[in-house]
Amino acid sequence: MRRLGENALIAEVLAPLATHPCAFGLSDDAAHLSQMPPNGLVITTDALVAGVHFFENDDPGDAAYKAVAVNVSDLAAKAAKPFAYLLTLALPAAPTEDWARAFAGGLARAQAAFGVSLIGGDTVTARGPWWLSVTALGDAPARPLVRGGGRPGDVLYVTGTLGDAALGLKMRLGLADFAAALSTDETERLARRYLYPEPRVSLRPALAAHASAAMDLSDGLALDLTRLCIASGVTATVDASALPLSEAARSAVAACPALIEAIITGGDDYEILAAVPPETASGLGTEARSRAFEAAARDAGCPIFRIGKLAEGAAPPSFLDPSGEPLILSAKGFEHFAL
Amino acid sequence: MRRLGENALIAEVLAPLATHPCAFGLSDDAAHLSQMPPNGLVITTDALVAGVHFFENDDPGDAAYKAVAVNVSDLAAKAAKPFAYLLTLALPAAPTEDWARAFAGGLARAQAAFGVSLIGGDTVTARGPWWLSVTALGDAPARPLVRGGGRPGDVLYVTGTLGDAALGLKMRLGLADFAAALSTDETERLARRYLYPEPRVSLRPALAAHASAAMDLSDGLALDLTRLCIASGVTATVDASALPLSEAARSAVAACPALIEAIITGGDDYEILAAVPPETASGLGTEARSRAFEAAARDAGCPIFRIGKLAEGAAPPSFLDPSGEPLILSAKGFEHFAL
Repeated sequence: MRRLGENALIAEVLAPLATHPCAFGLSDDAAHLSQMPPNGLVITTDALVAGVHFFENDDPGDAAYKAVAVNVSDLAAKAAKPFAYLLTLALPAAPTEDWARAFAGGLARAQAAFGVSLIGGDTVTARGPWWLSVTALGDAPARPLVRGGGRPGDVLYVTGTLGDAALGLKMRLGLADFAAALSTDETERLARRYLYPEPRVSLRPALAAHASAAMDLSDGLALDLTRLCIASGVTATVDASALPLSEAARSAVAACPALIEAIITGGDDYEILAAVPPETASGLGTEARSRAFEAAARDAGCPIFRIGKLAEGAAPPSFLDPSGEPLILSAKGFEHFAL
Repeated sequence: MRRLGENALIAEVLAPLATHPCAFGLSDDAAHLSQMPPNGLVITTDALVAGVHFFENDDPGDAAYKAVAVNVSDLAAKAAKPFAYLLTLALPAAPTEDWARAFAGGLARAQAAFGVSLIGGDTVTARGPWWLSVTALGDAPARPLVRGGGRPGDVLYVTGTLGDAALGLKMRLGLADFAAALSTDETERLARRYLYPEPRVSLRPALAAHASAAMDLSDGLALDLTRLCIASGVTATVDASALPLSEAARSAVAACPALIEAIITGGDDYEILAAVPPETASGLGTEARSRAFEAAARDAGCPIFRIGKLAEGAAPPSFLDPSGEPLILSAKGFEHFAL
């Protein structure tokens, strides 16, 4: 099996992905973006490490796809339109050509799915398992959409379904007593959601027009909502029974009700959490603005769900059970090298 | 000794470095650059791995400084003005507060030296020794300055001195028979050059006005000049005796003449290699344009040296000894996971 050194890896396998003229076909040290987006640029970076963010025996193309997707998810949550990314790839030894082609295949799938192209990067020697770091660029919306714009009274929304990736991870770790209650199809779908985030790029116009604050959910709803509340100087109440669950997650929770905690605190959702403000200026009231947001999301084909509200206060967000009692959560969410 | 989890590391140690308003004090998922540089943006990324690009027992602040400096060096070679960077930091476990403060201290020194500020990043768990990846942004020059613009007849220049970092690395690896010929001051200076690149940001106006091609030297003059020649579709001859050497490197080569190969093929110089074209349009001839480049560099206080010329042909660059005979090099330069 042929192996590729650094120069061959770049020239033969990665350069064909660099379709944007600013990348000079990866033959240079830096990309030169001469055309700037009219409202500026949103830029984000996220790294994935084998054995931390994916399994060492996962297909390298799946890991490559996920690395681009999680960065695109950050851009989507800022109402930015992704167009390019840089990639740093660290490998412990020269890869086989098969490995390199599988890896690049995942990048190519992500490029086609999200409309981005590779514009630069670096390849280095890893000490330990392989890892990759992506920096992604997007066209900015006219008004920055940040975590800190939420106000008391705003309606809280999430996209898609929550907890699938966390349950999929439990299954892969052999920690899923609930798996017996699921069909093969359902278990496969959960496992897939761990490796294949679906960044909600279609929500961009609705977010840009209506949201007061937004972020993507990567470390679990409980922790990420806490971050949004702290940044916005508010608290929140969430109706736990309103959290959108996939059929598979619903079956799992039916079999093991305590799993609701894994749904609320598990990471890797890559759905969007958004707060939509009252329309005080036009006098239409909160409902009118949130209905406009819902209509815009529906037009974009992006599933969204009301899960609660922001409120005045500095307490951590409350997750209420159907009787209105707050759930006691033993975990907060995912933090790297937590103490 | 207090240890810092991910949230404390970001909020207490890294956020104070994020002075640019687009960074939202690192409280958000992405930076929002609303003001775009007039000629666009140059963007580059380079990662450093402990045990590969620096020693595991090096001061973390020195590694942090080097990570920013090598990215700034890439921007400088493109005649771009650095202004911001993103940082991904991977640690095997929660750092001590001392470690984190030392690390951030190196970033702060680099920020002060190069006029950049931290605008975003990611912190993840490392499997194996720690590593860091930087993506740096600069104001673009009016005309992209790439590797591929060199033409036959162009004069070749390098900045500063070559080979110091390669000799410093040999000393640190205990492979330096030559060290006995050097003063303590000289050995210290070589070791320092390995960890403290001096990106040639002052050469920017001269490069923007006069150079046809440029790149920074990170993998050794021989390999990097080969890359410039391939991208430009030319060959080159270099007068090995014209290569600028520090006093320490000169003493080392005097003690051990074979070290000239380490000077030519060793990495980590982070000096700039530039080609300056003939001034055909104005009829002034090559010498006039190269003299203007030299004058501009002198005005900027940046030491530059003529080392050779580009020429028609596709052969690898030749390094000529004082008698005009080509040196035979056994190594090419540094390549990650070379075969």
